Amino acid sequence: MEKKNDVSMAVVKRLPKYYRFLVELEKQGVLKVSSNTLAEMMVATASQVRQDFSCFGGFGQQGYGYNVSQLKREIETVLGLNKLVRYNAILVGAGNLGRAISWHMDFDDFAITPVAVFDKNPEYIGKKMKTLTIQSINNLEKLCSSININLAVLCLPEEEAEEMVDFLYNKCHIKNYWNFTGFDISNKYKDTFSENVYLGDSLMTLCYRIRHGGKKPPEEI
Amino acid sequence: MEKKNDVSMAVVKRLPKYYRFLVELEKQGVLKVSSNTLAEMMVATASQVRQDFSCFGGFGQQGYGYNVSQLKREIETVLGLNKLVRYNAILVGAGNLGRAISWHMDFDDFAITPVAVFDKNPEYIGKKMKTLTIQSINNLEKLCSSININLAVLCLPEEEAEEMVDFLYNKCHIKNYWNFTGFDISNKYKDTFSENVYLGDSLMTLCYRIRHGGKKPPEEI
Repeated sequence: MEKKNDVSMAVVKRLPKYYRFLVELEKQGVLKVSSNTLAEMMVATASQVRQDFSCFGGFGQQGYGYNVSQLKREIETVLGLNKLVRYNAILVGAGNLGRAISWHMDFDDFAITPVAVFDKNPEYIGKKMKTLTIQSINNLEKLCSSININLAVLCLPEEEAEEMVDFLYNKCHIKNYWNFTGFDISNKYKDTFSENVYLGDSLMTLCYRIRHGGKKPPEEI
Repeated sequence: MEKKNDVSMAVVKRLPKYYRFLVELEKQGVLKVSSNTLAEMMVATASQVRQDFSCFGGFGQQGYGYNVSQLKREIETVLGLNKLVRYNAILVGAGNLGRAISWHMDFDDFAITPVAVFDKNPEYIGKKMKTLTIQSINNLEKLCSSININLAVLCLPEEEAEEMVDFLYNKCHIKNYWNFTGFDISNKYKDTFSENVYLGDSLMTLCYRIRHGGKKPPEEI
């Protein structure tokens, strides 16, 4: 499987969706899937599916359909989820959102090992979050000097984000962020990778759809 | 401001991002913004920005730049965030994720009023979640018959989602869902609007970028 160098982020961002469908199909015991079926699931055309896959060498023969388990494994490998390589992550912020992320996500599915969780709130420090004990943010630099941290999950308030990122980037040399803070990391540090999660965006889209979907609005003030 | 009827979901999904930038610009005291600057922020072309806005009547004059506050208000109106119309929401699931969503999101910014929160876990029932008291799921049908619920926020486990949606759709006539469960609602009920939030998708994208970004992998097993 050869990856082309010019794979666009748009294609990459579709891979998790393909992956989710394939996990579902495999669960249902489906063995083969056509690009037409995949296209329907993706709300795309079969030609776009084939074009997406051609970025990674095609993932199988056209005309015969794709082998579900094999395609799932191939995408797993492309995404780096096959656990041949694992990444160490720290979680910064053990408030409501941090706790939810920690409990809701099975990081092992992503080949990610959460190695520590930090907060500055004395009320949280010493408490358990899953298998980890919440530590003071003061321990962070020491940890980063003893093991290689590949990724920080940021669940702290936006107004505290920039200072924390300055620290993580400059002192701990962390370049990869799963970022729930709203602060735009890549704008300040160009050599970082960050996925910024704006939960509100999907809610706004839903508001738009409710408003314009032909449903009678509930009340006009 | 005239909305065309053929506005694609791709355009709609970009509006929250424009909106976030405009909120930021307004905060910084910026009065005018060009389509070039907006394009740069959006990682798009100025022509795409103008094309996006043309779906809603253009939002101002080309060549003079856009008035930041006015553009923000126009997008607010398009998205239905201007609070002329408000929506009633219920939250189903008061576990870690439900609590995080409840505390993290300021629903009022979206012109949404959370009117009740439900769970089936007796441990949660009677406890407070922000200003609301967590109620037994058994009270849900009664509430839905007394007030108009426009939207359900689903924060329950995937394996409980289908049964809950069957109930909400058939008994409470709720057609709009902000859905964190992973269950594909629109596939079963075609006349629903749902925004499905898959937190894992962005983490997978990040894994891909870490893996293919040229950074040395941490360890090969």
